[in-house]
Amino acid sequence: MPAIRIFVTGGTFDKEYDELTGSLEFKDTHLPEMLRLGRCRIDVSIRTLMMIDSLDMTDADRELIVRHCAQSDESRIVITHGTDTMVETAAALARGVTGKTVVLTGAMIPYAFGSSDGLFNLGSAVSFAQVLPPGVYIAMNGQHSAAPITPG
Amino acid sequence: MPAIRIFVTGGTFDKEYDELTGSLEFKDTHLPEMLRLGRCRIDVSIRTLMMIDSLDMTDADRELIVRHCAQSDESRIVITHGTDTMVETAAALARGVTGKTVVLTGAMIPYAFGSSDGLFNLGSAVSFAQVLPPGVYIAMNGQHSAAPITPG
Amino acid sequence: MPAIRIFVTGGTFDKEYDELTGSLEFKDTHLPEMLRLGRCRIDVSIRTLMMIDSLDMTDADRELIVRHCAQSDESRIVITHGTDTMVETAAALARGVTGKTVVLTGAMIPYAFGSSDGLFNLGSAVSFAQVLPPGVYIAMNGQHSAAPITPG
Amino acid sequence: MPAIRIFVTGGTFDKEYDELTGSLEFKDTHLPEMLRLGRCRIDVSIRTLMMIDSLDMTDADRELIVRHCAQSDESRIVITHGTDTMVETAAALARGVTGKTVVLTGAMIPYAFGSSDGLFNLGSAVSFAQVLPPGVYIAMNGQHSAAPITPG
Repeated sequence: MPAIRIFVTGGTFDKEYDELTGSLEFKDTHLPEMLRLGRCRIDVSIRTLMMIDSLDMTDADRELIVRHCAQSDESRIVITHGTDTMVETAAALARGVTGKTVVLTGAMIPYAFGSSDGLFNLGSAVSFAQVLPPGVYIAMNGQHSAAPITPG
Repeated sequence: MPAIRIFVTGGTFDKEYDELTGSLEFKDTHLPEMLRLGRCRIDVSIRTLMMIDSLDMTDADRELIVRHCAQSDESRIVITHGTDTMVETAAALARGVTGKTVVLTGAMIPYAFGSSDGLFNLGSAVSFAQVLPPGVYIAMNGQHSAAPITPG
Repeated sequence: MPAIRIFVTGGTFDKEYDELTGSLEFKDTHLPEMLRLGRCRIDVSIRTLMMIDSLDMTDADRELIVRHCAQSDESRIVITHGTDTMVETAAALARGVTGKTVVLTGAMIPYAFGSSDGLFNLGSAVSFAQVLPPGVYIAMNGQHSAAPITPG
Repeated sequence: MPAIRIFVTGGTFDKEYDELTGSLEFKDTHLPEMLRLGRCRIDVSIRTLMMIDSLDMTDADRELIVRHCAQSDESRIVITHGTDTMVETAAALARGVTGKTVVLTGAMIPYAFGSSDGLFNLGSAVSFAQVLPPGVYIAMNGQHSAAPITPG
């Protein structure tokens, strides 16, 4: 069973309701709880790189993500990410990471809401990450697509 | 995108609370609702073969499942199944179906309960079904394992 | 069994996640769904007066609420309301409505989230509305308190 | 604010899914979690008297419930109870307890399921218990009804 590295970057996935402000905010990631709910037995290590809306993600943030993926011991990586700029980050990863299977996933509805697509997407992403050949992929809607290789 | 055939056989996955009897019963399958919640965009066709507890599954039931898989036009198949005898059905499929990717999955907690592992497992199963080579597999806990090939 | 009139004004109660904007917005009220979930058999009629954050509620809005309560045929009224200015509206009602039992309630967490206090509060509010003597009350946290009578 | 005593007897309210047996069983009561979810601030003390299906409730069980209510320091009591024989227990309480407000409530769907009526009923029961005059009542569906006084 290949070990999987999970990098958390925020996105809708991890937003939750803040009673004080009455708005959606980031607190801690829900990934461990979601993997427990899914009774996931894969050898997984989770690291939160940032907790931001992907519209607020800068080039420096993307460099940080690319660097962590490139330096990771694990060759199979899942990244949770906001959907708005997931394609840009995937392109940056496709330019900067080789020889590893990197799968980005996200959610349209926060997990903290009862009716999120997040749990389905996470099950999908960790599965694709185990069996797809090296490359950068986006896993959403039960599908996977290869990241576009574009000049940076 | 490969089309996926989903065969429903029942199992914990689809059990729900019956107010009249106060016990867990089968009504309709939750698969369409779960795929909608997961915003699944794979070309999927669902057919309910039976709605039973897998402890009640007979050899004739297994033959029916094998025949439907063997005759299916789609070469990629997901089967929802009770966990108690999932391995037996996987073995029957391994003996009777060739040249197709068949993935069995199930749940430890009914989907109708808020905290089911079913949505995670379904996301996992449809993903494995798309990328694994022909064979019979069990997808649970984020993992996949090949069905044992045993003399029938 | 006395008939109860329910006036909806918005508040956290009815906020839901808008995928397009990624923020919390008002769509339709969840009151009918909540009463169905609670299997409420009280003779209830629901009318949405406004769907706003109570911080945005103006004096004109409050006058509208008071007028609807004063003119309502039913002598028992429940109002769903944002918590931020619930006390102000209760005070306005205490000045403008006599001879009726008016109960304001709300929620700290939107109902659309799985873990809302809204269903508990609604059960509480419709119960207090049936048995408390005429007056204006706030029902939150399982408790009821009379509205302050203040000069307007 | 009057203190409320809550006696737990089991019933659909507290049933949950047991993975080992695949059936609905009693473990611990969900009352504390439900009161927390409802952000209940009433001074409440909870005691589990039994955890049984109300169809299995014997005359001895009912005597036990009556005795605990009669001896309770609190004059306001909520009892969670299976719906099948709630009326019988209410009648026994009406014969055996005087000078106290006793409210029985239950649920048609276990709380552990996401879509239970239990939270609504609990909000209703604790509210009725605070304001109704001494007597024995059943609170379900947002309504309350007095227990029938029948010869025991």
